[in-house]
Amino acid sequence: MKIVALAGGVGGAKLAQGLAQTLPPEDLTIIVNTGDDFEHLGLSISPDLDTVCYTLAGLANNETGWGRAGETWNTISNIEKLGGPAWFRLGDQDFATHLERTRRLKEGQSLSQITSEFCKAWGIQVTVLPMSDSPVRTMVDSDEGELAFQEYFVHRHCEPRVKGFRFDGVEAAKPAPGVSEALEAADAVIFCPSNPWVSIDPILGVVKEINKPVVAVSPIIGGKTVKGPAAKMYSELGIEPSALAVAKHHRSTLKGFVLDHLDASMEEQIRQLGLATLVTNTLMNLPTDRSRLANDVLNFIGSL
Amino acid sequence: MKIVALAGGVGGAKLAQGLAQTLPPEDLTIIVNTGDDFEHLGLSISPDLDTVCYTLAGLANNETGWGRAGETWNTISNIEKLGGPAWFRLGDQDFATHLERTRRLKEGQSLSQITSEFCKAWGIQVTVLPMSDSPVRTMVDSDEGELAFQEYFVHRHCEPRVKGFRFDGVEAAKPAPGVSEALEAADAVIFCPSNPWVSIDPILGVVKEINKPVVAVSPIIGGKTVKGPAAKMYSELGIEPSALAVAKHHRSTLKGFVLDHLDASMEEQIRQLGLATLVTNTLMNLPTDRSRLANDVLNFIGSL
Repeated sequence: MKIVALAGGVGGAKLAQGLAQTLPPEDLTIIVNTGDDFEHLGLSISPDLDTVCYTLAGLANNETGWGRAGETWNTISNIEKLGGPAWFRLGDQDFATHLERTRRLKEGQSLSQITSEFCKAWGIQVTVLPMSDSPVRTMVDSDEGELAFQEYFVHRHCEPRVKGFRFDGVEAAKPAPGVSEALEAADAVIFCPSNPWVSIDPILGVVKEINKPVVAVSPIIGGKTVKGPAAKMYSELGIEPSALAVAKHHRSTLKGFVLDHLDASMEEQIRQLGLATLVTNTLMNLPTDRSRLANDVLNFIGSL
Repeated sequence: MKIVALAGGVGGAKLAQGLAQTLPPEDLTIIVNTGDDFEHLGLSISPDLDTVCYTLAGLANNETGWGRAGETWNTISNIEKLGGPAWFRLGDQDFATHLERTRRLKEGQSLSQITSEFCKAWGIQVTVLPMSDSPVRTMVDSDEGELAFQEYFVHRHCEPRVKGFRFDGVEAAKPAPGVSEALEAADAVIFCPSNPWVSIDPILGVVKEINKPVVAVSPIIGGKTVKGPAAKMYSELGIEPSALAVAKHHRSTLKGFVLDHLDASMEEQIRQLGLATLVTNTLMNLPTDRSRLANDVLNFIGSL
């Protein structure tokens, strides 16, 4: 069974790793959101791509949910001493990724080429693709005006109230090489438990149409997110944050929906949207939870 | 007594520190070679400026003669793992200097402004000026063709045989703000024990004329340099490397010349060039040697 998984950061990366531990590498392609990408300190930073790759390579810092394990902070702390911007905490190992990516981009390599070569260097066997080689930038419309995503997310700690989103450049952005081919070859597509508004929607904005059975795993459990602002965004947009809200958000694209036992009471309402459902443990606290959930999702797809 | 010191890297930085320990901060301006500056990994790197500033701030790595003390190497080793260029060894703390300088240059700040603000952040009280805010690039003519300075110096370990030098951009480069004013206000000028060909000459190429008494400290002791390729360059250019050769090189600009006891036999020949001489210990092995030599040189200037 050939699978394409769509992923944002932390939650997406965890399920992506579970799938990578379960499927033969040639049967899994992970398409990653690049709407969070930005330029900072002269560097091209791709937070979701890096979280997915670091996680797949076993290099991720599982405590913070971003950056690398065993990190040191000598560069950023010295930038701070010089009066430079230090609100985006980049570790010394992490800086290498951004410096080398930026150098290669300036040399004319594409983000997808660079990602492929970084994956090779990090020993990642599955295919990881940015959604596009063209810049797409998530802009957050808020009560304080429009903010670039990282400005909203990291610098302002998601404090401004969200009113909507815009994916700057999405009309012109073509899917990265390999994205359409992977979707064409796929038996099914999985939306990892990532933010519907700012992780999955930007990818769908680029990919536009998916003509394969799609199953989404809810990033909202018991009205909350494990990490990230999805629940807060739903509330501020006037929608009760819930697995049901996620299912409704993606309903036109979905064939099946995976929700947590904690939300089992919503299963019937989700079925009434015309979706097949799987109720299981979707929390991935332990490393073993990742492949367990991946197996559950794959079995669910097999049963559709 | 107001002093302007011209300096390249290691040797220059040591005497500059000695002078800074001896003179009131308002009486010392250090003009630093920027002919070694280059762009690498997308960063604007100023090796001599950094060596001088790190040394003055007590942050320098005295063992290597470049970079910072207590350095870690997590960024460069990860760049290497990704297949990036790692021949120029930048430490994690050092990267902060280059990242923040590059960010500010892109924002439109000048190198001299940035240097001034970095000095403030590092607690340096004397004035440190780049020779120019415009790029001047030392090019080495060699038996392998023309090489950019760092390519010759670091990447190729000074292996190609030197045939000459060219300072790209020197005609158009104006002295940085403060350089001419400092020379105007100075009672005397000191050439620190730096490479005549690639540290002092590029500064003189920008400054053009010095109408003040100039004293040079020989960077060559017993036919050798403490650090750097000056002696090798002299040999390859067909000149016996010696204190005498340095005195001859700078003779038209000099009033006095400081040489080591080891070279005392050349004192008479140097006097015959029309220069006053001081024979003293010019090696600066110990930190206390720096202020001792500075005192010797200042007393020598006072006696002229």
